[in-house]
Amino acid sequence: MAESSEVKVLGAWPSPFVMRARIALNIKQVNYAFLEENLGEKSELLLKSNPVHKKVPVLIHGDKPICESLIIVQYIDDVWSSAPSILPSDPYDRAIARFWAAYLDEKWYPSMKGIATAQGEEAKKAVVDQVVEGFVMLEEAFVKCSKGKPFFGGDQIGYLDIAFGCFLGWIRVTEKFNGIKLIDQAKTPQLLKWADRFCQHPAVNGVMPETEKLAEFAKILMAKMRAANPPN
Amino acid sequence: MAESSEVKVLGAWPSPFVMRARIALNIKQVNYAFLEENLGEKSELLLKSNPVHKKVPVLIHGDKPICESLIIVQYIDDVWSSAPSILPSDPYDRAIARFWAAYLDEKWYPSMKGIATAQGEEAKKAVVDQVVEGFVMLEEAFVKCSKGKPFFGGDQIGYLDIAFGCFLGWIRVTEKFNGIKLIDQAKTPQLLKWADRFCQHPAVNGVMPETEKLAEFAKILMAKMRAANPPN
Repeated sequence: MAESSEVKVLGAWPSPFVMRARIALNIKQVNYAFLEENLGEKSELLLKSNPVHKKVPVLIHGDKPICESLIIVQYIDDVWSSAPSILPSDPYDRAIARFWAAYLDEKWYPSMKGIATAQGEEAKKAVVDQVVEGFVMLEEAFVKCSKGKPFFGGDQIGYLDIAFGCFLGWIRVTEKFNGIKLIDQAKTPQLLKWADRFCQHPAVNGVMPETEKLAEFAKILMAKMRAANPPN
Repeated sequence: MAESSEVKVLGAWPSPFVMRARIALNIKQVNYAFLEENLGEKSELLLKSNPVHKKVPVLIHGDKPICESLIIVQYIDDVWSSAPSILPSDPYDRAIARFWAAYLDEKWYPSMKGIATAQGEEAKKAVVDQVVEGFVMLEEAFVKCSKGKPFFGGDQIGYLDIAFGCFLGWIRVTEKFNGIKLIDQAKTPQLLKWADRFCQHPAVNGVMPETEKLAEFAKILMAKMRAANPPN
């Protein structure tokens, strides 16, 4: 284990964004304390550490809080620089990894969340199509980035693997609830194999929630949302 | 001038995001060709270079397209690494600069754009308050990041200077159209001085549009928007 000088992660187990910080620390073999937040009643430490967004994850390194999952991953890569690199070493490869990570958070994830809230079959189909269209582009990106190796990052899990892979639990829950396949053998065969490899990786498999457990959590969450916003 | 091996920027002069790429290249003293896009009829080169978002800026380095303004700035810093650094060298400072740059794009800029479209005085005041609240936080960030020096980046323009400074033209146009001050002596005195220093910097002053010219452009743009979406 690398020197940690007191590392904490403020998080919540079902959050894909929190998972990014934890996987990055696992890759670097950094010991850390995981402080589970109750998002219904956020801790003083969370509010003080991330006063702008008041969101998890926050990485606290010594007494310094770092917020925003992809910024945390880059920070971890910068600080524990002697361990395996997370960002690609080539500037262009690095730009491509950053591009797709930003695409996932800014374009793809809002569509993905829209599957649960789309009203009617037609609207749902339109959102599912957008999500799958994103995966088809990511399949192409995988072929280019991985260069025949098992991960976007090559032989090891890298920045884009972490950025994308953290959504796999929620992708599987969405597939289960809707009786559909979002990543499949026909359209995205490389991603299908990559997803299994990613979930089995030792830096990931203790952190990725089981689909059943996440599905139970999702049911409770959706019931709360329906109670707060009953359909017209 | 540093070696450029054919560098092009696909852009549009009024775009704050395009300005980021140009300022970063100027800091590194890289020669580049600026290809002005007609955003009403995007070029084949733009559509081919940024098929996902179809947006400017795109940096083309040799035959490689790089998209998304903050990713472009980081790419420029990585490739022309011997010239002055744009990202801070300390990992924590780098995380803080990235945090505020992301805040500007994801939270602050949507509020800023909302000033032009807010319906009624009350709604406008609420949006203006959000924008100014962001500046008050950025004033605090300036004090911490600059450590008594002229820029967020210290003695030289850095990542957060570029990310924030590129909006100054539009901030001034918004102040002019609405008869208000968004950055002022009372609430944000450090930012007021920083803004002048930034605009006068040799890497910036040939790229930052004059307020009058940008205001003329904004009037035409707003007239087009009103014609497309007449008020109820």
